[in-house]
Amino acid sequence: MTYCVAMRLEEGLVFVSDSRTNAGVDHIAIFRKLHRFGVRGERIIVLQTAGNLATSQAVITRLQHQIQSNAERNLHNVSTLFEAAEIVGECMAHEIQHVTGLAQSNEYDFSSSILIGGQIKGEPPELYSIYPQGNFIAATMDTPYFQIGESKYGKPILDRALNYHTPLDKALRCALISFDSTIRSNVSVGTPLDLIVYRANQFNLPEGRRLYDTDPYFSMIRQQWSDGLRSTMTNLPQPPDDYWR
Amino acid sequence: MTYCVAMRLEEGLVFVSDSRTNAGVDHIAIFRKLHRFGVRGERIIVLQTAGNLATSQAVITRLQHQIQSNAERNLHNVSTLFEAAEIVGECMAHEIQHVTGLAQSNEYDFSSSILIGGQIKGEPPELYSIYPQGNFIAATMDTPYFQIGESKYGKPILDRALNYHTPLDKALRCALISFDSTIRSNVSVGTPLDLIVYRANQFNLPEGRRLYDTDPYFSMIRQQWSDGLRSTMTNLPQPPDDYWR
Repeated sequence: MTYCVAMRLEEGLVFVSDSRTNAGVDHIAIFRKLHRFGVRGERIIVLQTAGNLATSQAVITRLQHQIQSNAERNLHNVSTLFEAAEIVGECMAHEIQHVTGLAQSNEYDFSSSILIGGQIKGEPPELYSIYPQGNFIAATMDTPYFQIGESKYGKPILDRALNYHTPLDKALRCALISFDSTIRSNVSVGTPLDLIVYRANQFNLPEGRRLYDTDPYFSMIRQQWSDGLRSTMTNLPQPPDDYWR
Repeated sequence: MTYCVAMRLEEGLVFVSDSRTNAGVDHIAIFRKLHRFGVRGERIIVLQTAGNLATSQAVITRLQHQIQSNAERNLHNVSTLFEAAEIVGECMAHEIQHVTGLAQSNEYDFSSSILIGGQIKGEPPELYSIYPQGNFIAATMDTPYFQIGESKYGKPILDRALNYHTPLDKALRCALISFDSTIRSNVSVGTPLDLIVYRANQFNLPEGRRLYDTDPYFSMIRQQWSDGLRSTMTNLPQPPDDYWR
């Protein structure tokens, strides 16, 4: 499976993806699911993929080819992130139709989901969640984050600790804890994690970072979080006697 | 949907169920999913159900009728919990076959899952998770809890804070927090909650308790938990500078 989170906050954007893929439990591999596009000083666009790996990779490759061949509409020349999401949605819907046709069967699931976030000069930062059908929804102040893949384990901490005004550094910690919860409860999500944090209006192209299990900071906050939960749990008052009758 | 947790621990058994059912988002209702059987001084058997409500109710009713009619094998005369699980599994598998035959279609999902736990005099406390096919698995010291229904949101806290040696009162707090996490992130799981805590070798028939949103203890620990998480999150150290490049 996969787990990806993207956040669109007052201060900017946060993207974190895992890197585990599995075709059955005996075919585990590491593939990057976080992909960065952009032109320094002018635009940054980050894509995260979940679902069928062949479909996801084909979509990313076709988007890169569009840029290289200077296609009329590509991620490096559209003037809004909405248009960028349209291009990605169309590319994915066509790819899924294409392989479904090749297979001549509805037996297989070729679908993927994609998150696309970024900023193009003259526009505010934006974030979209693109469905396999090619349509998409935008993150808002009410709903500042999107998840794709194995999203349920890590959702409670986001719902509790994150809102539009959360500072970027705290949002990143929140995302990493959401991944920790998911990784502990589901073997189909695993390290290394890929992350990019983008501060609004910088128009830099942050390289981002790959976090392995051995990363000292990630290990430290995982341990502190675990200790904090245990001590919070231990300090909750005892149930009243009449709970036991 | 539904969320039910059952735990088989060194000190005894803990059962907590929500009570929300939905047939689409515009057909929400409250139905009890936790059912107690037993004979004071001799046996206690608790069932929790998830899945198709008609199937779940039919199974519970048939099990009650078996007892009332003093059937050759029923929950009040079998000598092991393993046999009780067999009766329940057979009853459920037959019920699902029956309604699937009536509908003459595989289009509908009539399946349910059931947790059955308890203790019969002369035996240790036991807990089984019964599949729609009628077969079942037993909880062990390695895996002391089972969940059915909407289980993912509330699993991380159980995986972190619960083991076979956890005292009953702490296990109950842990279960309630697991429900809090689920209820906050998924509208298909809702209060009131039904709970039963059984201390091993007591052979009493605890009435259990129904917890509404307004329950003072439940409200208090939900608030304390939320505050504890937020403060643990806030106290995590800042990410290193090179996370931002």
